Amino acid sequence: MQSIAGREAIIEAARRARAALLPLSRLPAEAKNAALVSVARRMGESSEAILAANAEDLERARPLVEAGEMAESLYRRLKLDDAKLKDIVSGILQVASLEDPVGKVTLATELDEGLRLYRVSCPIGVIGVIFESRPDALTQIASLALKSGNAVLLKGGREAACSNRVLFDIFREASASAGAPQGALALLESREDVEAMLKAESYVDLIIPRGSNALVRYIQQNTAIPVLGHAEGICHIYVDEAADIEKALDITLDSKAQYPSACNSVETLLVHRGIAPAFLPRVLGSLKERGVVARCDGRAFDEFGVTGVERATREDWRTEYCDMIVAIRVVDSIRNAIDHINEFGSHHTDAIITEDEAAFDLFFAGVDSAGVFLNASTRFADGYRYGFGAEVGISTGKLHPRGPVGLDGLMTYKYKLVGEGQTVGLYSGPNARKFSHKKIEL
Amino acid sequence: MQSIAGREAIIEAARRARAALLPLSRLPAEAKNAALVSVARRMGESSEAILAANAEDLERARPLVEAGEMAESLYRRLKLDDAKLKDIVSGILQVASLEDPVGKVTLATELDEGLRLYRVSCPIGVIGVIFESRPDALTQIASLALKSGNAVLLKGGREAACSNRVLFDIFREASASAGAPQGALALLESREDVEAMLKAESYVDLIIPRGSNALVRYIQQNTAIPVLGHAEGICHIYVDEAADIEKALDITLDSKAQYPSACNSVETLLVHRGIAPAFLPRVLGSLKERGVVARCDGRAFDEFGVTGVERATREDWRTEYCDMIVAIRVVDSIRNAIDHINEFGSHHTDAIITEDEAAFDLFFAGVDSAGVFLNASTRFADGYRYGFGAEVGISTGKLHPRGPVGLDGLMTYKYKLVGEGQTVGLYSGPNARKFSHKKIEL
Repeated sequence: MQSIAGREAIIEAARRARAALLPLSRLPAEAKNAALVSVARRMGESSEAILAANAEDLERARPLVEAGEMAESLYRRLKLDDAKLKDIVSGILQVASLEDPVGKVTLATELDEGLRLYRVSCPIGVIGVIFESRPDALTQIASLALKSGNAVLLKGGREAACSNRVLFDIFREASASAGAPQGALALLESREDVEAMLKAESYVDLIIPRGSNALVRYIQQNTAIPVLGHAEGICHIYVDEAADIEKALDITLDSKAQYPSACNSVETLLVHRGIAPAFLPRVLGSLKERGVVARCDGRAFDEFGVTGVERATREDWRTEYCDMIVAIRVVDSIRNAIDHINEFGSHHTDAIITEDEAAFDLFFAGVDSAGVFLNASTRFADGYRYGFGAEVGISTGKLHPRGPVGLDGLMTYKYKLVGEGQTVGLYSGPNARKFSHKKIEL
Repeated sequence: MQSIAGREAIIEAARRARAALLPLSRLPAEAKNAALVSVARRMGESSEAILAANAEDLERARPLVEAGEMAESLYRRLKLDDAKLKDIVSGILQVASLEDPVGKVTLATELDEGLRLYRVSCPIGVIGVIFESRPDALTQIASLALKSGNAVLLKGGREAACSNRVLFDIFREASASAGAPQGALALLESREDVEAMLKAESYVDLIIPRGSNALVRYIQQNTAIPVLGHAEGICHIYVDEAADIEKALDITLDSKAQYPSACNSVETLLVHRGIAPAFLPRVLGSLKERGVVARCDGRAFDEFGVTGVERATREDWRTEYCDMIVAIRVVDSIRNAIDHINEFGSHHTDAIITEDEAAFDLFFAGVDSAGVFLNASTRFADGYRYGFGAEVGISTGKLHPRGPVGLDGLMTYKYKLVGEGQTVGLYSGPNARKFSHKKIEL
C-alpha cells in the first residue's frame, strides 16, 4: 500500500510522471495492449480483494447514509459487485481493442523537394484527473491514459479510498510487470495533494475534474493549468412545429427521467407554439405519471391554459436541476429556440425533435454546443455510447477536445519537418526558391 | 470612417459579431471565396488611398524613430509600398483558393440502425485578435476569419491606425457587398476597447494576441476567455554527434541571423561533446563573421578551449534574445539535449541536425514542442511556409490548436447525432439493445 502526500511528494510524483512520458511514448501498440490485457486478467483474478476493500468503504459510508449525510444514490454508485467487476474488466479490454491513437499522421505536405512536413498525433503529457466516488472511473481513466501514452495523476473520491487503492495497486503492478514505465500512474489521496497538483504547472499539462459544479469551478479558478471539463450540463430539447409527438414524448421522458442526475439529462424543454396545444397536455400528463415536476413559463398558463404545475421564473432557464424537475417554455420560432439555448445553455448537448430536415440543418448550424442531436435522447452524449470505449470527461469548452473525451481527446500533435539542410534564406530574396506545398498522399 | 469605443459599444460589437455567426456559417464556400476575390480586387484598386493613409502613419512615426522612441525595424514593418500591396492582394486570393474548412466530417459512426453519429467541423465563433504594427496582418486575419466562418474583432497597433482603418473599411465594404454578413468584422481602436473585450467572456470565444511577450502575458492574466498564442519563442538547435557539419553551420546561421527578432529564430545551440572539437571553432567563426554574439557555457571554455566569446549563465538558457545573440551549451548526450529543451524551452520549435535516423526518432518523441525538425531551419515554423496560406498566430499550448494557426486552427467541431426517436432506455436493462459502433465510410 503506497501513497504520496505533501507538496514535495506531489511534485516528485509529477516529475516521475513526466520522466515516464518518453518511454511510454515509445511503447508499441502491441505492448500497451498486452499490458491492458494483463491488467484486465489481474482485475478478474482479484475480485475477492477488491470486494473486501469495497466492503470497508461501504462500512464507513453506511452510517453516513443513515444520518442523511450521504445520498443513497452515491452509496449505490460506490458499491461494487460481481456485475460491476465484470464491467470493469470488459471496459479495460475494450480500450485495449481500440486503434492506437499515437503517431497518426493527420497532414502531410511536401514543402519543396526533400522538405516534408507532417502533423503527427502525440499524447498531451501529464494529466491530473479528479473523479467522483465511482471506483470504476479509476480503471477507465487509467486504461485510456495508458493507451494514449499519457501519464496520469489520479485523485478519487474520499468515500472510495480503499477501493481505489486496491484497484490502483493492481493496475500499476500488472501494467508495470507487462512493461509499462514506472511512474506513469500515481494515486493522490488527500485534498492537500490536489492543491499541490494544481500549483505544479511546470509538470502537469492538463487537469480533468469530474464532479460537482462547485468542484469544477473551484479548480478552474485555482490553477494556471488548462482545465478540461464542464461546470454545468444544462441540456435542452426543442420540440419543433414539425415534431412527431410520440418521439417527442419518448425522448423527453428518457432525457429527463432515465437518470436525472447525469450531466446529459435535459433541464429545459422548448416547445414551438404551433405544436403546444397538442403537445403540452400530453407531455405534462406523462411527466406527472413518471414523477417529474414541470415548471412552465407564463405563456403556457396564459395562452395554452396549462394548470396544476409550478411557474418557471427566469432563474429556471439557468438551473441544472439534476433532479426530477423540468422547465418548459413556449417559443415562437426555431430561431427563438436557438437564441434561448445559446443564451441560457451550457454548450453541452441539445436536441431538436422534428421531421423537417431543413429545421435540423438550421438548428445544427445555430446551436453552439458540443452535441446537437436530431430525434434522439440527450442522454446519448457519452463516450461509451459514442463508441469511444470510455471517457475521461465531457468538455463544454470551444477548443479541442469538445464533447465526450475519449482517446482522441487525450491527444495533441507535433509538426515534424524533415529536411536535408534547407534554410529559410533559400526561399527569400530575388532568386528565392518557391514552395511547392504538394499534398503527400498517405 | 467608423469606429467603436466605450465598454457598451464593444459589447454591442461583440453581440453583432455573435449574431453574424449563423448567417456566416450558412454561406456556401463559393460565396465566401467570391467575397474574398472581391475584397482582393478592391484592395488592388485602392492602392492610392491605402498608401495615402499609410503615409499619414509614417509621418507620425518618423519623429519617433528620430527621437529613438521607435525602432527602425518597426518603422520598416509599418511602411507599405507597391510590392507589399501586391502581397496583400495575393495573400487574400491564396486564402480564397484554400479548401473550405467548414462542415468537414472527421468521424462517422453508426451507433445502431438508424442512429448515426458525425463529428463535423465548425467555426470557433467570435475571435478577438490583437496584432502588431504590420498593417498586412489585418487583411491576413480578416481573410482567414471570413473563410473559416468566424467573426472577428480586430485591434491593430496604434502606429498603424490610419492604414488599418482604410484596409478595414475596404475589407468590410467589399465583403459585405459580396454577401458576407454585417457585423462579422469590427475594428477596435483603443486600449480601453481591448480592456472591454477582455471582459466580454459571454460574447467572445477566443483571444489571439500577437505582439510582445509583455502584451501576451498581460492578456493571459487579465481575461477569463481562452487565449491562444505564445509569450515566448525560445527555440533550440541540437547539433548531434552524427551531424553533417556543413548543414549544421548553414542552419544555425539561417535560424539565428536571417531574421533574429522572429519568434522562430534560434536562441540556444546545444552541441554534442563528440562533435564539439570540430564544430565549435567553425560555428564561432561563422557567427562572428555574421555579427552574431555567442555566449558559451563553462565546458566550451574549459574542455574545448573556446576563447574570445562571452560566458553564458543559467539565465541565458531562459532568454529570448530576439537579437543577434546566441547561447551555446555543450551536452553529453541526446537525452541531455532533450531534457534541456523541455526544461528551458518554450515548446515552440526545436531542430536536430543529424544523419542518424534513430537519433531523430528519439528527439521527435522526447521533445515536447509544437515543431520538431530534422536538418531544417527553425525559421520554417510559419503558417505561410507550412502551406496554411497565412496564419493568425503560433500556439505553444498543448491543446489544439498547436503551432502555426491557419484555417484548421480556427475550427472546432460539434457532434451531430441523427436518430429516429431513440431513447437511452432502449440500451439499458435486461433486454438492452446493443450498440453496433460501426464505422461509416466517408
